[in-house]
Amino acid sequence: MGLGEKEMEKGLLSKWNFKGEEIVNKASACTIRTTLNTLKNNLDTSDERPVIPLGHGDPSAFPSFQPSKVVEDAIIDTIQSAKFNSYAPGIGIPQARRSIAEHLSRDHPFELSPDDVYVTVGGRQAIDVILTVLASPGANILLPKPGYSFYDARATFSHLEIRHFDLLPEQAWEVDLSHVKALADDKTVAIVIINPGNPCGNVYTYEHLQRVAETARKLGFLVIADEAYAHLAFGNNPFVPMRLFGSIVPVLTLGSLSKRWLLPGWRLGWIVTSDPNGILEKLGIVECINSCLDISPDPATFIQAAVPKILKGIPEDFYSGTLNLLREAADVCYDRLKEIPCFTCPYKPKGSMFAMVKLNLSLLEGINDDMEFCLRLAREESVVLLPGLTVGLRNWLRVTFAVELSSLEDGLGRIQAFCSRHAKKQ
Amino acid sequence: MGLGEKEMEKGLLSKWNFKGEEIVNKASACTIRTTLNTLKNNLDTSDERPVIPLGHGDPSAFPSFQPSKVVEDAIIDTIQSAKFNSYAPGIGIPQARRSIAEHLSRDHPFELSPDDVYVTVGGRQAIDVILTVLASPGANILLPKPGYSFYDARATFSHLEIRHFDLLPEQAWEVDLSHVKALADDKTVAIVIINPGNPCGNVYTYEHLQRVAETARKLGFLVIADEAYAHLAFGNNPFVPMRLFGSIVPVLTLGSLSKRWLLPGWRLGWIVTSDPNGILEKLGIVECINSCLDISPDPATFIQAAVPKILKGIPEDFYSGTLNLLREAADVCYDRLKEIPCFTCPYKPKGSMFAMVKLNLSLLEGINDDMEFCLRLAREESVVLLPGLTVGLRNWLRVTFAVELSSLEDGLGRIQAFCSRHAKKQ
Repeated sequence: MGLGEKEMEKGLLSKWNFKGEEIVNKASACTIRTTLNTLKNNLDTSDERPVIPLGHGDPSAFPSFQPSKVVEDAIIDTIQSAKFNSYAPGIGIPQARRSIAEHLSRDHPFELSPDDVYVTVGGRQAIDVILTVLASPGANILLPKPGYSFYDARATFSHLEIRHFDLLPEQAWEVDLSHVKALADDKTVAIVIINPGNPCGNVYTYEHLQRVAETARKLGFLVIADEAYAHLAFGNNPFVPMRLFGSIVPVLTLGSLSKRWLLPGWRLGWIVTSDPNGILEKLGIVECINSCLDISPDPATFIQAAVPKILKGIPEDFYSGTLNLLREAADVCYDRLKEIPCFTCPYKPKGSMFAMVKLNLSLLEGINDDMEFCLRLAREESVVLLPGLTVGLRNWLRVTFAVELSSLEDGLGRIQAFCSRHAKKQ
Repeated sequence: MGLGEKEMEKGLLSKWNFKGEEIVNKASACTIRTTLNTLKNNLDTSDERPVIPLGHGDPSAFPSFQPSKVVEDAIIDTIQSAKFNSYAPGIGIPQARRSIAEHLSRDHPFELSPDDVYVTVGGRQAIDVILTVLASPGANILLPKPGYSFYDARATFSHLEIRHFDLLPEQAWEVDLSHVKALADDKTVAIVIINPGNPCGNVYTYEHLQRVAETARKLGFLVIADEAYAHLAFGNNPFVPMRLFGSIVPVLTLGSLSKRWLLPGWRLGWIVTSDPNGILEKLGIVECINSCLDISPDPATFIQAAVPKILKGIPEDFYSGTLNLLREAADVCYDRLKEIPCFTCPYKPKGSMFAMVKLNLSLLEGINDDMEFCLRLAREESVVLLPGLTVGLRNWLRVTFAVELSSLEDGLGRIQAFCSRHAKKQ
């Protein structure tokens, strides 16, 4: 062999224009994963200090954020039963659907049916499926700014036009409803509400969520409720599920085992439809979700089979333990960040795992934007933060406080040192 | 609440034309899953005999087709280590990529690198990713007829034009290369070769695969080698991996733990690139696979972590045991099918889990096509077979022989009874 490669290569190169590829690369370019990889590649390997990962929402590597022991027992049971090695239905196995419906119905007036639940490969596939189903030619979707950039990636991939509405930092990151009204038109298919908030750490009140539902109803589009961080609320606002307003407007809720159960690597999520008026059925959305899951990858069957034991068997103190950890970490994080002159923290986090801080570049020497800040911080201090641009706000930073407290303090100390070192001389 | 639903519904219904939905439903309509669901819904629940599932390639519910004990130990180890609850990189964790590369390189002259391996959510996501990456506007792909309809579903979804080339039943289901030449043009991006064959049970020779590679090279497109049934070859042809011809033409191989390891519900697959000339890199395909996996769901991290132990630790007699079972089942199946007058079996299966039989409808009374045959067989005999139309050949049937031998004999007996009962009176 060896002869003819040039011709082969030329033949292949000349025949493709790779539009498909371009859209995939474009979609991927805006993800948190891609940005974090860039930052990790910029770490100084000669720095002997441990890397402090304050850039991503995955505390599961830290001893304080280990899953409940119940989880291990549940999965070993399903494995040893040897009953769950087979293919599962695209929508999920019945016992997983039933237990998710029961779990989410707890403490709430509206009872979900197992038929309202679709099991997915983590919350990310739930987003993928919903955006695929809603992407019709010319349609647009309203995404929060700042928000979770995976929506931007999947909307880009699905040729769904993105319109960003503002969240208001001075009003506890509430939705700017007048901005929503100005952006929406007759091609708007849905609004995405992330609560508890990623990246802002906010928790919406019942009243605010109701206003969002009423606005969506009035303007005539669905609500996609991203509740990946459901129940991770440790301030004075309790977590309120958006599906309570399903009779006002159809709600598609996304959730997963990743955050509350500290199992991000298990890739088990769900879509739940809340629509007592049956509008989603009439619109063909229910059928389309079924079809989409039919041609999509499934979560492992034996993991699905462990879901009932996980949702029923974990003692309450596991959940309250996590909340206490997050509350303390959020306190420490907020207090330390406030002390850094070039940072502004408009809001003390009450939920999820993140705080947003605004960068005042005029106080820094030779650092021109948030990405440069993060690249140099990674290089000089082995601390990874997420540049705000990745979540939609240039020259802000997303700081994860869901790490071991000692690491958080170490990381915040290094950030402080970095900022003083680069402070503009007065 | 309750007021205004009509307006809401009307508003939503009037604004959407749901093209997105249509393509998803269209893609899903042709899958094996959808067809099998239709057949299962037609079962007579008053029939007290067990349902015999000869329609799908998943024997994992039967006692003779249980996975190796090593598998259970491997997964319990990774769970108990508590090291693998975190998110994984989109391309897979390094130890899984390395072990798949080593496993596939065994006994072959070309050594794969871990960088050639991308871990996926089963073989189905591998197909999804490859077709997404290759789908540029106007491009077409060559798919075998008969074939695996998930390719048709994903190509339809990705707006990739499908051109079917014939497999030749009288020539051991070899590729009709003159048909391939007639179909290909300068917009053809790839040909799909499924070996061992689904649905035909064939195993291609080294020489035939080499001819396929040379044809692809000459015509200027890639080869997608679907080796989901790799090593499940129990006749006189050994299994030959297509990647041995990677220096003739770039090969994208798809594989998974589903079939050889009897773990279909685990959803762990891979894409492997074999391209010593670096053409895929130059075309941007490698970058695009990375991007696509970045915005796609991942297999569970702890399952990925179990892969090295599974691939290294399973004793040889597990594999040979499965082959012996399949060989015996294929013998029984072929012999019994040959005795049924309205069936023609052009080829005795030498691999995978399936046989294809041609239905002679002129010998049957009141049965007009393969779907009707399967619907009535399900209803009257509680036996599920796959209508050939689902794999591209109308009025053929795909029969799975990978079930417990006693069930296979029971099922074949019922099929025989059904056919005699519906035989046209001479």
